[in-house]
Amino acid sequence: MTTLPHPERDEIRIELVLQALADPVRLRIVRELAAADTGLQCGAMDLGITKSTLTHHVRTLREAGVVRVHPQGTARISTLRRDDLEALYPGLLGGILAAPR
Amino acid sequence: MTTLPHPERDEIRIELVLQALADPVRLRIVRELAAADTGLQCGAMDLGITKSTLTHHVRTLREAGVVRVHPQGTARISTLRRDDLEALYPGLLGGILAAPR
Repeated sequence: MTTLPHPERDEIRIELVLQALADPVRLRIVRELAAADTGLQCGAMDLGITKSTLTHHVRTLREAGVVRVHPQGTARISTLRRDDLEALYPGLLGGILAAPR
Repeated sequence: MTTLPHPERDEIRIELVLQALADPVRLRIVRELAAADTGLQCGAMDLGITKSTLTHHVRTLREAGVVRVHPQGTARISTLRRDDLEALYPGLLGGILAAPR
């Protein structure tokens, strides 16, 4: 598996982060990642969507700087970029995760 | 001026709030309202856009539950729904307002 591109912390833009989060499926992915202590393989998330749709959503989150995707053997593991988001937008992630479902 | 419809606090949806905020012009409106102690008339914001574009953006923010628009004489005054947003998504607004420009 090749390494995928990620924006550096200072390249992350609030508009893109909000756009990435403003989608019910992507919000669920972020909640799953936040609940997991470690990173998650996409396949481990039971979101009831096809693999290609999931890949698309994870890509949107990765390109916005919300998640980091790194290869592990033949799999790709996603983790939430908590430190970067908290440094840039303190409180944002917590507020979103606190949202009533 | 007639009274415009607003979602009640329990009708506000995080996806719509994030969509409303995920726009550079609307973020600037929110920053202006956050910086103002009281509400602002749309015309008082110098955003370099036409009145109809501004009206459209304020409407998007109102319908999402981010701002409250109330008539005052022949004008309409916008205020940020800080209390509602803080109750629903504690930290969200602060995180967004802290974002580097």
